[in-house]
Amino acid sequence: MTRPTLTTHAIILAGGRGTRFWPRSRTRTPKQLLNIVGKTTMLQQTVARLRPIFPAGHIWSVTNTEQAAALRKQLPLAARRRVLTEPVGRNTAAAIALAAIHVRHAARGDALLAVLPADHYIARPELYREMVRAALQVALEPERMVVLGILPTRPDTGFGYVERMGEPLQVNGHPVYAVRRFTEKPQLEIARQYVASGNYQWNAGMFFWRVSTFLVALKKFLPTTHDALEALSSHIGKRSYDAALKRTYGKLENISVDYAVLERATREEGASRVFVIPAEIGWSDIGSWAAVYELVARQPGENILASDGHTVDATGNFLWSPDKFVAAIGVHNLVVVETPDALLICPRDRAQDVSKIVKALEEKKLKHLL
Amino acid sequence: MTRPTLTTHAIILAGGRGTRFWPRSRTRTPKQLLNIVGKTTMLQQTVARLRPIFPAGHIWSVTNTEQAAALRKQLPLAARRRVLTEPVGRNTAAAIALAAIHVRHAARGDALLAVLPADHYIARPELYREMVRAALQVALEPERMVVLGILPTRPDTGFGYVERMGEPLQVNGHPVYAVRRFTEKPQLEIARQYVASGNYQWNAGMFFWRVSTFLVALKKFLPTTHDALEALSSHIGKRSYDAALKRTYGKLENISVDYAVLERATREEGASRVFVIPAEIGWSDIGSWAAVYELVARQPGENILASDGHTVDATGNFLWSPDKFVAAIGVHNLVVVETPDALLICPRDRAQDVSKIVKALEEKKLKHLL
Repeated sequence: MTRPTLTTHAIILAGGRGTRFWPRSRTRTPKQLLNIVGKTTMLQQTVARLRPIFPAGHIWSVTNTEQAAALRKQLPLAARRRVLTEPVGRNTAAAIALAAIHVRHAARGDALLAVLPADHYIARPELYREMVRAALQVALEPERMVVLGILPTRPDTGFGYVERMGEPLQVNGHPVYAVRRFTEKPQLEIARQYVASGNYQWNAGMFFWRVSTFLVALKKFLPTTHDALEALSSHIGKRSYDAALKRTYGKLENISVDYAVLERATREEGASRVFVIPAEIGWSDIGSWAAVYELVARQPGENILASDGHTVDATGNFLWSPDKFVAAIGVHNLVVVETPDALLICPRDRAQDVSKIVKALEEKKLKHLL
Repeated sequence: MTRPTLTTHAIILAGGRGTRFWPRSRTRTPKQLLNIVGKTTMLQQTVARLRPIFPAGHIWSVTNTEQAAALRKQLPLAARRRVLTEPVGRNTAAAIALAAIHVRHAARGDALLAVLPADHYIARPELYREMVRAALQVALEPERMVVLGILPTRPDTGFGYVERMGEPLQVNGHPVYAVRRFTEKPQLEIARQYVASGNYQWNAGMFFWRVSTFLVALKKFLPTTHDALEALSSHIGKRSYDAALKRTYGKLENISVDYAVLERATREEGASRVFVIPAEIGWSDIGSWAAVYELVARQPGENILASDGHTVDATGNFLWSPDKFVAAIGVHNLVVVETPDALLICPRDRAQDVSKIVKALEEKKLKHLL
């Protein structure tokens, strides 16, 4: 393999509108813009993690109009000019394509891309950067698409899985496998078999490829999106851009890059096209308040308080009420989250049902709480 | 019996510093000054209940220096001038005696007194007033001390019990019994026997007697208190009063009127001295957040919310967070109480342990939370 000679750019997909961190997460301040774990926000942690590899001016964010202002405030100065706004949500294939044409314009030609989620937790950032560097190196070769795969720790049915095959290449001492297959959220029994086999990784949405490689694949698999964005490309840096974007974006295919590009390329174009690098980087997508508790608690049954407080016969509680003294008596494994206008109480093992509250608020048209 | 000819005065004992309604109740704003049940405060409800019988200028309150300002604000204008402040707490015998000498001064002689707690709930105020009128009529007779007794609904070990005896007098159609004995908080087995016998009422701290009757009893049973307050009496209405009160009050016996006067009078002076009138007035001392839930819930398992909210698979919860939208998922029989600086979470059946939190705050010297 050759050493990278192209410039490298990170694309942070930051348009998520997750509902599982209500009442803290809202339409304008979703999970990625909150300090869910630690003192800085998920986005700030994502950016800080990438800065040793990417200069701030090479860190791009794709988000929606509601979040753009709050998001910019959290970015380094040079990265604020790299925020791309989608007029409407069109899923990850379109978002990455939009970023790709912007990077190509800024780089005045081809470039190497790392596509990364804004709201994931990574316990081992040093190792993570090593894996990103390895992935970029593999992706430098034209035609290749690379995925970081998380070693599964449980038969989770909420993730997509990546099956690897054959003998690995070695890149910087890390094994790199050809991908046999992408599979979407499996049934529990299937997920158990995947974990047991040792040949599967979770697809955590971390992708690496050249701009040119991605756009060629896009032309093949999503020609409408490809052609529309190529047309938009000529407006970048001009006054006509905003209007052209608005005209264009709603027409793009609303589909994930996993389905539209990675699965199809793997299935239709065979080996030596898509690669997976297993990464033991202490990853979590932090899917609920329960996941936050598990990340933060240093021992089973510990009470996690965001403030001063006192507990009596209480264990395993996550009590987020940062400006108040919290007193808990005789309660166990609860999640309590307080904000200036809302209060949530639920058992940790019901934390995924917080989305039901958000749905009820939508039905009641209580927009100020969304 | 003769009709009342003396003026009647109510003495509201409002110096309680209960800890069981933390975090709402604080040193300066204890239970009686809060809207625990309904829109007005316990004190305001107590006063409103009494107004059809007592003019506002005949409603006296005894409290401590911390609460006096907040208490005055809740009283009718004429009653604000009737607030008596204890420099230090000296329990109910001294508080009633202090009020007695003030009433005697205001009435320029003897008067009829109703001594009543500030922080109890009464579901049937009309019947309550009938009982108060009957009790005042019985107490008009010199030497007599009268108690309203609550028909016990459970073998509660937290109350004192009053045993009645013999055949009742009838006053305004209500039976009035001589008291055989006062007994303090009994063991559970004893309490069960009391309830089963039908001869016992709870002592709810509602007493009726002439000023003269009370002071004579006081002279016999608590001569130090009696003599000190008689001496203080000459300072009432003078500039020297505050200094004299401060000099005097700390020296008074620190004892309840139940122990010091009622029990001893019953034991030592026999029948025709102390009377009890059974009163089915829907009384509750509202001893904890759990008691509030039981008063307010119209059916078992109902969720009580102080604000707008949404519940999913949640039953029997008391959720007090008046300015926030409250969401509860999968929790049962919890008490959650939120104030600007504190948040309490406990099961309803642990509500009495809230005092443990207050104790911990005292130990931690977190005075701003007390």
